[in-house]
Amino acid sequence: MSIAIIGTVAFDSIETPRGMHERILGGSATYAGVAASLFSPVHLISIVGNDFPQVHFDYFENRNISTNGIERSSGLTFHWKGFYKGDMSQAHTLQTDLNVLLEFDPKVPASAADSRIVFLGNFDPELQRRAIRQFNRPELVVMDSMNYWIQDHLTSLKETLKLVDVLILNDQEIRLLTGIDNVVQALPHVIKMGPKRVIVKKGEHGALMYNGSDFFAVPAMPLDDVVDPTGAGDSFAGGIVGYLAKNTELTEDVFRKAVIIGTLVSSFTVRDFTLGMLERVTQDQLRAEYDHYKRITALPEEF
Amino acid sequence: MSIAIIGTVAFDSIETPRGMHERILGGSATYAGVAASLFSPVHLISIVGNDFPQVHFDYFENRNISTNGIERSSGLTFHWKGFYKGDMSQAHTLQTDLNVLLEFDPKVPASAADSRIVFLGNFDPELQRRAIRQFNRPELVVMDSMNYWIQDHLTSLKETLKLVDVLILNDQEIRLLTGIDNVVQALPHVIKMGPKRVIVKKGEHGALMYNGSDFFAVPAMPLDDVVDPTGAGDSFAGGIVGYLAKNTELTEDVFRKAVIIGTLVSSFTVRDFTLGMLERVTQDQLRAEYDHYKRITALPEEF
Repeated sequence: MSIAIIGTVAFDSIETPRGMHERILGGSATYAGVAASLFSPVHLISIVGNDFPQVHFDYFENRNISTNGIERSSGLTFHWKGFYKGDMSQAHTLQTDLNVLLEFDPKVPASAADSRIVFLGNFDPELQRRAIRQFNRPELVVMDSMNYWIQDHLTSLKETLKLVDVLILNDQEIRLLTGIDNVVQALPHVIKMGPKRVIVKKGEHGALMYNGSDFFAVPAMPLDDVVDPTGAGDSFAGGIVGYLAKNTELTEDVFRKAVIIGTLVSSFTVRDFTLGMLERVTQDQLRAEYDHYKRITALPEEF
Repeated sequence: MSIAIIGTVAFDSIETPRGMHERILGGSATYAGVAASLFSPVHLISIVGNDFPQVHFDYFENRNISTNGIERSSGLTFHWKGFYKGDMSQAHTLQTDLNVLLEFDPKVPASAADSRIVFLGNFDPELQRRAIRQFNRPELVVMDSMNYWIQDHLTSLKETLKLVDVLILNDQEIRLLTGIDNVVQALPHVIKMGPKRVIVKKGEHGALMYNGSDFFAVPAMPLDDVVDPTGAGDSFAGGIVGYLAKNTELTEDVFRKAVIIGTLVSSFTVRDFTLGMLERVTQDQLRAEYDHYKRITALPEEF
């Protein structure tokens, strides 16, 4: 069953202690889409400029990522420039050229309107709502956001949250959204805002899922070499929705597995620039990584 | 088999969003000792002033914590005053009265010299070495430290590390000790300094253990109510050494279980001021908490 992923397709210019790359393929929908495409066909819904090369469209199509929903505008493609240093946990922005993103008004093509799962990347919550309305009763609406929308567009964001089944945010964003410092204490308050389930991404510290009554806590894969953290959160979310789409029944067990898959997929993402490692991941590699992860986290049976 | 725990016994004056307490029983050896005493007899080695009441000595003795090694000096007991706010992850110090700690020169009583496990709380690395030498070939030397000793007494600290089997530090301290931002990358460098095993405590983010070849990563227990984080790290370490002492063979499996026990024990500590909740923990409660933790972290079996 297919997924629709709506968000940004961008050029990134990135410097990390491991190197510098100019205008490489990036954006939240790109990372989420490529991660999801490891498991399921994807409809990408975004906007790019006339500087966006055909080779990138071909790249998506070859991965079973439909680009029908990518609008081609006459302007320039969204461009982000930034760097990472030190413990690499924070991106430092040098330059943001919104360009065609200023005219972004997601149009869901007829071929994508029946998508079973809709993933809303981080963009204007008003546009997120407009996007949701174009789908025919999706089974699951999953949403990401960021501090900017929480701080400056909270009323609109809360309207969107009412339409969302699963919210994926990092711990700082959960604090900001609820005004509560203790993330565990904050989660029931998020549930009251609409989502039936919240997944907290904590980067190198793993993830925490809450379904309104039960928690699921997992550490991250220990990584001794982070090349470029860009796209970690987006591919975490993409891995989750991609894996969910593969399953007919969305049980608690399937959600738990999806969170682990997201964790593993994002750990591939950060081991190379842009989609270098993520795009090459095979099912066998994922299976081996899952076994490795299980060994690293295995609890002794009894007390 | 018994454990010797060497470190500070103190009065703490603490303010958190949940309340304020003056001159309550604290100190690294106190928290580690009470946590360890849940599993094994303990020898406490420390120094207090003449203002330290008999009722606290009785308290220790009633818990099977021998106080023979607690020197009574004529001065005043070490006193720390601080507060926590916001996400409670950082202690803010208002006042530190070292008092009798300035004359601390640990004397291991004959009754403790055959301890199988020695835990060195956070104090002057030169004194840590002097303490180790007073034991008759302990099977395991476990050590804690803090940024002050790493920054200002690094040469001395590295001498002590050569005598240590298991080092327990938080992630910032690991970075400081090695000069490496990526903690996973830093751990093999710590092993080269002497310890055969490193346990990284990450507070609300869980723990990471490295034995020179394999990792063990665990999340923390999700807690919606942190009353007072004081002693979390010390009782984490105390729970670990206490549980280890209960086992005749220190296998990898036993170490993994010990890290979980430390995680659970410290989660009891922070749910009340001073030793309020920690001291009342029963084996049944721990067993139930272990089962609860297993449910919260349970991975689906196959990929």
